[in-house]
Parts: sequence; structure tokens; C-alpha cells
Amino acid sequence: MSKPLLQIALDSLSLEKAVADAKQAESAVEIIEVGTILACAEGMKAVSTLRALHPNHIIVCDLKTTDGGAILAKMAFEAGADWLTVSAAAHPATKAACKKVADEFNQVNLDAKVKKEIQIEIYGNWTFEDAKEWVDLGVKQAIYHRSRDAELAGKGWTEDDIEKMKRLEELGLEISITGGIIPEDIHLFKDIRNAKAFIAGRALVGEKGKATADAIRAEIAKYW
Amino acid sequence: MSKPLLQIALDSLSLEKAVADAKQAESAVEIIEVGTILACAEGMKAVSTLRALHPNHIIVCDLKTTDGGAILAKMAFEAGADWLTVSAAAHPATKAACKKVADEFNQVNLDAKVKKEIQIEIYGNWTFEDAKEWVDLGVKQAIYHRSRDAELAGKGWTEDDIEKMKRLEELGLEISITGGIIPEDIHLFKDIRNAKAFIAGRALVGEKGKATADAIRAEIAKYW
Repeated sequence: MSKPLLQIALDSLSLEKAVADAKQAESAVEIIEVGTILACAEGMKAVSTLRALHPNHIIVCDLKTTDGGAILAKMAFEAGADWLTVSAAAHPATKAACKKVADEFNQVNLDAKVKKEIQIEIYGNWTFEDAKEWVDLGVKQAIYHRSRDAELAGKGWTEDDIEKMKRLEELGLEISITGGIIPEDIHLFKDIRNAKAFIAGRALVGEKGKATADAIRAEIAKYW
Repeated sequence: MSKPLLQIALDSLSLEKAVADAKQAESAVEIIEVGTILACAEGMKAVSTLRALHPNHIIVCDLKTTDGGAILAKMAFEAGADWLTVSAAAHPATKAACKKVADEFNQVNLDAKVKKEIQIEIYGNWTFEDAKEWVDLGVKQAIYHRSRDAELAGKGWTEDDIEKMKRLEELGLEISITGGIIPEDIHLFKDIRNAKAFIAGRALVGEKGKATADAIRAEIAKYW
């Protein structure tokens, strides 16, 4: 078991702002995510630029891939992403297409430090039977979160969230957790022993970002 | 009841190709869609460029919005999109956020020929209770399709698809239909009286595109 990593989600509307935010946060995080907003605003040059600037970080491309899996996965991995998010709502054939592309990249890059992976981003109506299918497909990671909009609507973390994460973990998935993550909440997730990463956006940006990252890391050190 | 419109989905990896495809197809379609692949590849400049080149077409931005609704909707509408796709898997708060942004644009652009609208793109596990919620939110449009990947896996249109479309229509939704649309399939949908549009991508591109568009339109004329 390794300690959960820290991931910054860059969701600015311009690459210039994202590049500045990433530079400021780079020493505080292991994973840099091109968020959906940034990817839709700027396209794949956001991924290729951040890849070039941060060769030693894990780069996540958060497309929440819902269809056209083979093309989107190839595009994101070629631009330099290590991990690609795929919506739980995507057709099984879409998830399989993304996984196949990741495997193909890995087969020709046997020495890569970080393997290409897909992460199932849990949205919509889903079941544990669905999750079992993801595992059967060879998927190793899932992302559990409060939706940004649910968070804005004041929806907090619940015991039900924790129970679901534990069940997903029991199926064999590593879980990244996101949705308004703050240091004070980290203890809520202490039973998720294979937590892969905590993902935060605005909390890690700006002057207070470094202090927040340190506070999250101190909490992680307490519980993992 | 008006006749279903024809929509080209531009899913190339470069804006240059998309611009060429749109120019070739412009006289054959009423709606030009910046597909997910194009939007993720090139960002919002794909929308703003096609908006500028095609001021009299309806422009759809196919982000399959799954989270961050307010920001993505504002971004897409500001870039010039008339309609924005929102994933059925998105949290209700995300759908509401997108709808609110559309309404705000409409309130300050009372003379706009085309109102800003959101289209629920049906992916994942959904129920007719969910669909009722979309209608209650004021949503007027949904997109029904075979997933591109399901299509590649050889999954055809079924009677079950048609029945579901009819029930969605009965709830008050206008339905756009997509997923490997060919002229020979149009008759399958003749009972969908409020079909909003048929969406095709590669079929409308290239040398044969105009002939295919004409053939689809001839079929539409037969049945609507």
C-alpha cells in the first residue's frame, strides 16, 4: 500500500493561466490534470504543453470520454497523457476501446515509468455489477466524487459515499477522490486503504495553494 | 410539425479538416456540429471559427457536458454555439446549471433567430423518470443514438430503440437521432413525428456526402 498521491486539476479557461497554476503547484503534487474545462477550452495543446513542461509528473487528461473511445484515447495519449478519464456512462464498447488503446501504447513502450491507464469516472446511474465489468475489462482505477455542481448545491460527503468507495476498492479498484477536497475532510476517507489520489483544483491554486497542499499531505501522513 | 433537419457532425482531429468538410456540406445541412472529438482536439476556437464561417446555420457544440455545467455552457455559448449537448449521466444540478445559462443568454438576446438550448445526450443507465425530470427542468431536446463504439461493434437499430424514442417524444421531447445514419434507415424512424434532426458525420463528408444528404432528404420527404 502506498500513500495517496496529490493531484491538481487545472480547470482554467486559458492555457496561459493553467501553465502558471501548474508551475506554482508542481513541487506540491505528483499528478497534473488537464481538467475537462481546460481541455474543451484549449484542446489537446493543453495536454502537450503541460507534458513538455512537466516531464516527471503524471499527466491526466480528464475528457470524461463518453463515446469515440479509440480516437479520443489515441489523441490524449499521443498528446502525452498518462491516464485518461472515461465516463462510467460510456457504452462498454467505448470503455473497451479506450483500454485497448492504452494497452497498445504500453506494449510498444515497455520501459515507460508510468503505464497508460484509463480511469472510470463515476457519473450517472451505475451499479456494482457495472463496476465488476470494469474490473473484468482490466481497468485498475476509478474516480469517485461529488459532482462540482452537486458540491455547489451544498451536497456534502456522506457515509454512503464512503461505503460505496469501500465496495469499489473490494472489487479491486484504486480510487481517486475529488469534489471540493479540503484538508479537514481527508480523515473521512481513512478506510479507503487503496486511495490512489486526492484531487483538488482551486484549493491548490494561488497563494494559499502550497499551504493547502502541505495541510492535505500532513493529513494523509496521519492516516496512511 | 416540421420536417426533421439534417445535421453534420464534424469529428475530425484538426480544425482545418473540419472547416473544409463544413464548407463542402453547408448547402446540404441546416445544423453544423462541433463534435466531441473536434472540440477536444482544438478547443473552443473550433466553435468560434465555424460560427464565423456559417452565420446562418445552427451550431451545436457536442461537449456531452457531464460536470462544471455553468462554466462549460457559458464557454460554448459565448464561442457561438446555439445548442449544447449535456450528458444524461450528469448530475441534475449540472443539467440545471446548463439550462440556467441558456436561459440567461436568451433573456438578453430576445431577437435571436435561434434560441440557446441544451440537448440531453442519452448515455448510460437512464430511466423515463429521469427523462421526466429533464422535461420538468424545461429541456426541449434529447439526442438518441447508437454509441459510435456500439455501432462499430455491429449493434443495429432495434424495435426497442424506436419504442424508447416514441416514449421520450410523448414526454414532450424533440428527438435528434444519430449513430451511423444512412438513407436506407430513415424509414425506421417514421413514427417519431417530432424528430428534430438526423445527425451524420462521415456519411456527409467527402465526394459522396452531397449525394448521401440528398438521399436522406428524399427519404425524409417521403415520411414527414
